[in-house]
Amino acid sequence: MEPALDVVGVGNAIVDVITTVPDSFIVDHDLVKGAMTLVSAERSAELYEAMPPGVAASGGSAANTMAGVASFGGRAAFIGKVRDDQLGEVFVHDIRATGVSFDVPPAPDGPPTARCLVQVTPDAERTMNTCLGTAALLGPADVDTDLVASAGITYCEGYLWDVQVAKDAIRVAMAAAASAGRTVALALSDSFCVERHRHEWLDLIEDRVDVVFANEAEVCALHCTDDFGAALHRTAEMARTVAITRGARGSVAVQGSELAMVPAAEIPEVVDATGAGDLYAAGFLWGLSRGAAVARCAELGSLAAAEVISHVGARPQVALSEFATASGPA
Amino acid sequence: MEPALDVVGVGNAIVDVITTVPDSFIVDHDLVKGAMTLVSAERSAELYEAMPPGVAASGGSAANTMAGVASFGGRAAFIGKVRDDQLGEVFVHDIRATGVSFDVPPAPDGPPTARCLVQVTPDAERTMNTCLGTAALLGPADVDTDLVASAGITYCEGYLWDVQVAKDAIRVAMAAAASAGRTVALALSDSFCVERHRHEWLDLIEDRVDVVFANEAEVCALHCTDDFGAALHRTAEMARTVAITRGARGSVAVQGSELAMVPAAEIPEVVDATGAGDLYAAGFLWGLSRGAAVARCAELGSLAAAEVISHVGARPQVALSEFATASGPA
Repeated sequence: MEPALDVVGVGNAIVDVITTVPDSFIVDHDLVKGAMTLVSAERSAELYEAMPPGVAASGGSAANTMAGVASFGGRAAFIGKVRDDQLGEVFVHDIRATGVSFDVPPAPDGPPTARCLVQVTPDAERTMNTCLGTAALLGPADVDTDLVASAGITYCEGYLWDVQVAKDAIRVAMAAAASAGRTVALALSDSFCVERHRHEWLDLIEDRVDVVFANEAEVCALHCTDDFGAALHRTAEMARTVAITRGARGSVAVQGSELAMVPAAEIPEVVDATGAGDLYAAGFLWGLSRGAAVARCAELGSLAAAEVISHVGARPQVALSEFATASGPA
Repeated sequence: MEPALDVVGVGNAIVDVITTVPDSFIVDHDLVKGAMTLVSAERSAELYEAMPPGVAASGGSAANTMAGVASFGGRAAFIGKVRDDQLGEVFVHDIRATGVSFDVPPAPDGPPTARCLVQVTPDAERTMNTCLGTAALLGPADVDTDLVASAGITYCEGYLWDVQVAKDAIRVAMAAAASAGRTVALALSDSFCVERHRHEWLDLIEDRVDVVFANEAEVCALHCTDDFGAALHRTAEMARTVAITRGARGSVAVQGSELAMVPAAEIPEVVDATGAGDLYAAGFLWGLSRGAAVARCAELGSLAAAEVISHVGARPQVALSEFATASGPA
């Protein structure tokens, strides 16, 4: 059956609180620069108190990717968990206003909606400290398997793997997608996250995953190697399609015998790297859903990533469909 | 006694939810372009649902002004009311992180923290719809009269006058400032707000106010005239100092026999007019607190306003103290 949706994303529903800090802030507060670190509610409150004034904007890795797919004109849905609080309301508003279907009911009690404190340093790198709150309670019961089966691609973020019930939710979603003959995609999310889950992920990719998204550090961590070429090669033996981002050096994508090396799209200034990988995945997935060759998928990924790093915040501020049209057919 | 604080601001404690919309959005939703309109919780929810994704950032007119005074290096405090909810937490964090003292305890129950839906149109004009929530419960008991007496200037926003208890809070604050021999300043806030309270405000200015801030439309509305010169003249007969902003044409300030006409500071692009008047007042008040002549006060106001309209959001994103130093002594 023709899919009713292009992509469904499964991930943490998070509101980002973004601020600009000097490098000394990262050092003074013992933060792991460039990484996503999970923190307790107490640590989050302590860190927030130390932070300069910020802006709050919806985030979450797979949620950002779905916002990107919708911005390209794709039909996207998101599965994640918020509470019925003010930040939850912001998250739900923003994802729906972007045109993404979102129907997981907010939790009426329990911990608050997930908040990620994002520190952007002068080099445009982002350092993230996430208090998962209710997002960590996303479980198998929240996965609408009919919705998953109706989507051409099911895209899961690796960050979810840090929580047992969310891990089960991913397994349920991937199984439903596979039974319906759909494509399963996984983002490795963060090299520390890969370190935590290497063995399970190698099995998962081998058994269930058709498309792997990662950056160089993540794919190297997956195979315990410093040899990027070897890591890419081994991953490509396990999954049909592999797309690896390399920062300013662009990206490499492999699908069977096709290998595409695509430069990063040029922009005047990198302002905030938050969401670069998420939006790369959005462009790539949108291309895949249109049956584009991997080279074109990677190019669409680069376009979307370039837009999102040119401003503060992890979601596109313009209609990516216009970018895509300007650069040729999918 | 030498004041311990430069300025204390009294106003609505609000979190802004800012989004960019085409002009058709303003028309389709019957909004009053460029104005601040008070809306019910129901209307606010309805409008929010129709809005594109946004970013949330602390706002509130007098609160923005205090953030500006602190950014110049001034000693500022704020009096306003939030609830103990997530948006309240954001407001409290941001104002304190800017260096402004804020000690009004959050309400443990009742309506939520005030939210202002801000629509920015392509001409950089902002249209605001505010649901006051708990901010409307600011009352005389929330005014720390010792704090007010310790500040060289007490600055009140006219917006507060829409609510009876807040009106009483302003009267208490102004009386405490006057008893301590301090300076009392009032911002007229919005021409529709002036229309609603003209007679009371004329009396208030005559009796209590030393410094009046307004834009052209507001000062004309105050005196029911289209003649800006006449409106300025009449206001200057009632208050010692009058500062009137004129958008791209700069500002006019009068103090006794001194008249200063100061051009707007030049910036490459006006992105979002939100906070222009608030930050003008910040620069002006900071100058006054340093004993500067009105021409210099107006120049400092122009500098601060230019910074805030060059980006999205109503609070400065750089240290205004550096701007001020670069342009000469206060």
